[in-house]
Amino acid sequence: MKVEKISELTTNRLSVYLRCLNELAEKGQKTVSSDALAQKFHLNSAQIRKDLANFGEFGVRGVGYYVDELHANLTRILGLDRPLRVCIIGSGRLGTAIADYHGFKHSNFEVAALFDSDPKKIGKKIGGIEISDMKSFSALIKKDKIELAVIAVPAERAQLVLDKVTRAGIRAVLNFAPIPLKVSDDVKLKTVDLTSSLESLSFFLTGAADVDDGDLKPISASRRNHK
Amino acid sequence: MKVEKISELTTNRLSVYLRCLNELAEKGQKTVSSDALAQKFHLNSAQIRKDLANFGEFGVRGVGYYVDELHANLTRILGLDRPLRVCIIGSGRLGTAIADYHGFKHSNFEVAALFDSDPKKIGKKIGGIEISDMKSFSALIKKDKIELAVIAVPAERAQLVLDKVTRAGIRAVLNFAPIPLKVSDDVKLKTVDLTSSLESLSFFLTGAADVDDGDLKPISASRRNHK
Repeated sequence: MKVEKISELTTNRLSVYLRCLNELAEKGQKTVSSDALAQKFHLNSAQIRKDLANFGEFGVRGVGYYVDELHANLTRILGLDRPLRVCIIGSGRLGTAIADYHGFKHSNFEVAALFDSDPKKIGKKIGGIEISDMKSFSALIKKDKIELAVIAVPAERAQLVLDKVTRAGIRAVLNFAPIPLKVSDDVKLKTVDLTSSLESLSFFLTGAADVDDGDLKPISASRRNHK
Repeated sequence: MKVEKISELTTNRLSVYLRCLNELAEKGQKTVSSDALAQKFHLNSAQIRKDLANFGEFGVRGVGYYVDELHANLTRILGLDRPLRVCIIGSGRLGTAIADYHGFKHSNFEVAALFDSDPKKIGKKIGGIEISDMKSFSALIKKDKIELAVIAVPAERAQLVLDKVTRAGIRAVLNFAPIPLKVSDDVKLKTVDLTSSLESLSFFLTGAADVDDGDLKPISASRRNHK
C-alpha cells in the first residue's frame, strides 16, 4: 500500500501504543479493542484507529486487535525489529543522564559510544562506556556501525557538531541544544527543546488562549474559545 | 482581538523566534524582516508571519519588525515577563541534569526546589538547592510560590507524583517519564518522551515514508511521496 506522509505526532503516538501493548502483553492479555486501549491508557480511540489505518488493517471485527500481532506490526513499522546503535556527543550532566536513560534497557537501542572534546573527560567511563575523543568520531562511527546520534553539547557548538555528525554519514539525530540547526533534507533532525517546552507551559499559565496539545489528550478536552 | 486555539507547535515556534530575536538584539540589530529572520535561523518566513498574526500586527511595511518591540511582545505573549518558580521532582541523573540546565540562566524560570523520596538523597545539595522530602511537597510549593513542576521520576511512579502535584495546585507540568499520564482539563501537561523521539527517528531510518516534522524546516523540504 502507499504510505502517505506520516506526521511526527503520528509516529510519536505509534511509539506510545507500542508501550501500552507491551504492558498488556506482559499481563497476558490476548486481544484489545481500540476503545479499551484508549480507556486504559488515556488515549483517543478514534485517533488510534486513524493512526493504524495509515499502515494497514489490523483490527478484526468483533475481536479488536490481537495484542501480539499488533505489537509485532508496530515494532516492524517503527523499524524496531533490529538493533540500532546510538552515540551521544557531549558527556556533561545531560549527556550522561541520557546514556543512563532507563528506557534504553530492554529496547533495540544500544548506546555504543560517548564522545567529548574535553581532554579531562576522554578515557573516563560512564556506565561501562568509555568517553571517546571527538577527533576519532568518523572512524568510530563506521567501525561501530552507529546510525543515530544524540547531541548534548552547548548551543554554540551544536551546529559544528551536527555538521560533523552528518559528514560521518549519520542520518538520524536527536538534538538537545536549544537552538535551530540547519541540516540537509536527507537527514532527520529532531530537537528536544527544554526551553520551548517550559515557555509553552508559561504561555498556558497566562490563560490567554487554549493550547491544542497535538498530543494524546482526547480532542474534546482542550477546546474552548476565549476572547 | 480574539485569540484562536493556539497549537503547541505554534507556542514552541514563538519561543524559538524569541531566542533568535535575543541573538539579534545582542548584536545591536534594530529591525529584521520575516525573510531575513527565516534565512538567518533556518526558519520558514510564511510560518513566522502566520504565527505572529495570531496575536496582532507586529510588522511595519518597508521595515519588517522592530527587534526590541517584537521581543517585548513575544515575551509578554508567552508570559515570560514575570518570574516563574519551578520545582523538579526526582533527583536522579535526569532531574539533576535538568536542575543544572544552562537554559535556566538569564531566563525568568528559577529552579526553586528539588524533591525526592529517597532518605539518602534528602538534605543533599545540587547546585545550591537542597533536596527536599516529597512529604513536605504541598507545604513547600505554597510557601515558595512554585507554579511549574518537572517530573523526572521512574515511569511506574509518575502518575502518583502527578496526582500529588496537581492536588497541591500546580497547573503546568513537564513530564519526562515515558508513559501516558492522566490529568484534569485545567492542568497543562507536556511530556518529553525520549523513547518516542528515538522511535520516530528509527521510523525515519526505515525509509518507509516521509515524516512531516511539524517543526521548523521549510515546508517544501520534507515533502516527497514514496510508494
